[in-house]
Amino acid sequence: MTKIHELDTPAVLIDLDRVEANLRRAQDYADANGVKLRPHIKTHKLPLFAKRQMELGAIGITCQKIGEAEVMVEAGITDILLPYNILGQPKLKRLLTLARRASIKVTADSTTTIQGYSETFSGSGLTLPVLVECDTGGGRAGVQSPEEALGLARRIADSEGLRFAGLMTYPAKGMVAQANAWLERAKALLAEAGLAPEIVSTGGTPDLWHSNENQAATEYRPGTYIYLDRFQVQEGVGGFDDCALTVLATVVSRPTETRAILDTGSKSLTSDTLGLSGFGRIVEYPESAIVSLSEEHGIVDLTHSAAKPKVGEMVRIIPNHVCPVTNLFDEVTFVRGDAVVDTVPVSARGKVR
Amino acid sequence: MTKIHELDTPAVLIDLDRVEANLRRAQDYADANGVKLRPHIKTHKLPLFAKRQMELGAIGITCQKIGEAEVMVEAGITDILLPYNILGQPKLKRLLTLARRASIKVTADSTTTIQGYSETFSGSGLTLPVLVECDTGGGRAGVQSPEEALGLARRIADSEGLRFAGLMTYPAKGMVAQANAWLERAKALLAEAGLAPEIVSTGGTPDLWHSNENQAATEYRPGTYIYLDRFQVQEGVGGFDDCALTVLATVVSRPTETRAILDTGSKSLTSDTLGLSGFGRIVEYPESAIVSLSEEHGIVDLTHSAAKPKVGEMVRIIPNHVCPVTNLFDEVTFVRGDAVVDTVPVSARGKVR
Repeated sequence: MTKIHELDTPAVLIDLDRVEANLRRAQDYADANGVKLRPHIKTHKLPLFAKRQMELGAIGITCQKIGEAEVMVEAGITDILLPYNILGQPKLKRLLTLARRASIKVTADSTTTIQGYSETFSGSGLTLPVLVECDTGGGRAGVQSPEEALGLARRIADSEGLRFAGLMTYPAKGMVAQANAWLERAKALLAEAGLAPEIVSTGGTPDLWHSNENQAATEYRPGTYIYLDRFQVQEGVGGFDDCALTVLATVVSRPTETRAILDTGSKSLTSDTLGLSGFGRIVEYPESAIVSLSEEHGIVDLTHSAAKPKVGEMVRIIPNHVCPVTNLFDEVTFVRGDAVVDTVPVSARGKVR
Repeated sequence: MTKIHELDTPAVLIDLDRVEANLRRAQDYADANGVKLRPHIKTHKLPLFAKRQMELGAIGITCQKIGEAEVMVEAGITDILLPYNILGQPKLKRLLTLARRASIKVTADSTTTIQGYSETFSGSGLTLPVLVECDTGGGRAGVQSPEEALGLARRIADSEGLRFAGLMTYPAKGMVAQANAWLERAKALLAEAGLAPEIVSTGGTPDLWHSNENQAATEYRPGTYIYLDRFQVQEGVGGFDDCALTVLATVVSRPTETRAILDTGSKSLTSDTLGLSGFGRIVEYPESAIVSLSEEHGIVDLTHSAAKPKVGEMVRIIPNHVCPVTNLFDEVTFVRGDAVVDTVPVSARGKVR
């Protein structure tokens, strides 16, 4: 049995027991609270885990890109939400092809997007379910008011080849109540107009344990909950001992008494701080700080760490944000404790389109 | 002839005429000033461009990872510097295999690293040239003093299978004179000890046009100069019209009068700011600002832009930092003006080890 310290670095390690515990904890909570989960696969990008999420009770999955959905459909997943405005002929053609193989739902926040969907699906023999994306306070995409949502819902309902299927939002963190109020107003307006939404989809791992407060919602899209990370621990979603993804790195230099250099930089940890100080937590040296990254170097300040690593020593890092880390590695290694179980390709990695 | 606006987005576009002009400008400057170039391929990760750099007069190339060097040797490049402490059996074995096929030089800043090299190369019939990495002010890896450099040079010279080949530094930006003074002191010490360095390697695109001031150096390792980016323009290395790499993106949402959403986020532009405000420059809307990124969304503030893009419109973005962008795309598209020339795989992408 290979041990993790026999691996080459940097490597992404996925602790299978923690993955299973994280998935079960969320699904149990969802079941107990009448919440339906539609996990976002952006965090793991692995068909194996998408299938496990379905087995445990998820009603479907979420993908952000057509390319991700193609990988998941190929692997046998049959219910996918793409919460994104899909624009342009190349993507619309692929969307139609996908919709012939699986149940695909999409979103729109403009008449331009709706028109593209309709031109693609009218005459195809298929009806595309379209949700209206709502900006309930997150400040990203989405219509700005329930009235606008109603306008687009009508437009979808009136468009050949399309069906109005509901509302979708990615709410601002910690603003569950605000998002809920917005969605309730929109639902009332839609119901009055005879367009009561079948689906109201919301999400976000930071508020996972408050998802039962989304009275307006019919489904929840958590992503990061499968692995957790330093940011989610700060948000109280779990503890460091629940973090299932670590980056295994080697100390390649100890130029001074208080400085260590790791062979993992922005090319493996990303520059995402998510507002945290430093670029990850070194499990074996929690008092140390990864103070800066260049592409292939992680610079560690050991000032506050009584223990100091040696050159050649391996350490494990809990990243600030695991999702972009997954996207940087062609493969990840499954482990149980210190034992290596398997190394698998990240088959939905790098799907930029 | 395909035009760029017929492409799917996001896509990385490489303007071949600008690449050629950037490479020639640097090589002409180097030739005129007696500077030898050893370009770092981390920026482009393409054998084609590495070969072009060699044809124009580079004395060899620089790679940061064994995996990058393997791709380049496979493509026919025969002289590579790996300015990194190579540690651990898996990488050392691959290093030995590579050294049987091409001229490979490495660096070390500790006795642990030197010992690994020596154990690998003694009895192999090969002699590995090893440079001592020097921290001349950059605060990353490297010995802290010329005296330490001498100590490691002696250690290398005394190690079976190794040859002391010189000094390597990645100097702090704008500190050419300081780095030079450090290296001159080290050279004098080494010469006294009968270990005059054959190679003194330094680098960094921001100081490319001052590389002739590196009197102590025998070679220069620029990377980003091939494409340039928003950071290098700020540093005065070139203008926006010299930037050869752009990310083609689509406006997928215009939720408000002053907000646009692009289909390019941290998964295509990276979170690297390099200290700049915003995450890139939109060529067609230079008064706009990419104010934040999530993985698949770029949020644009149009407040100061009189012109506003429509949903479905394509724009081109000059990233803050091009090197990590290259690493996020499986393929890049060569263009001349608005015409698509070819799409090629980024064959040294994702070489984390």
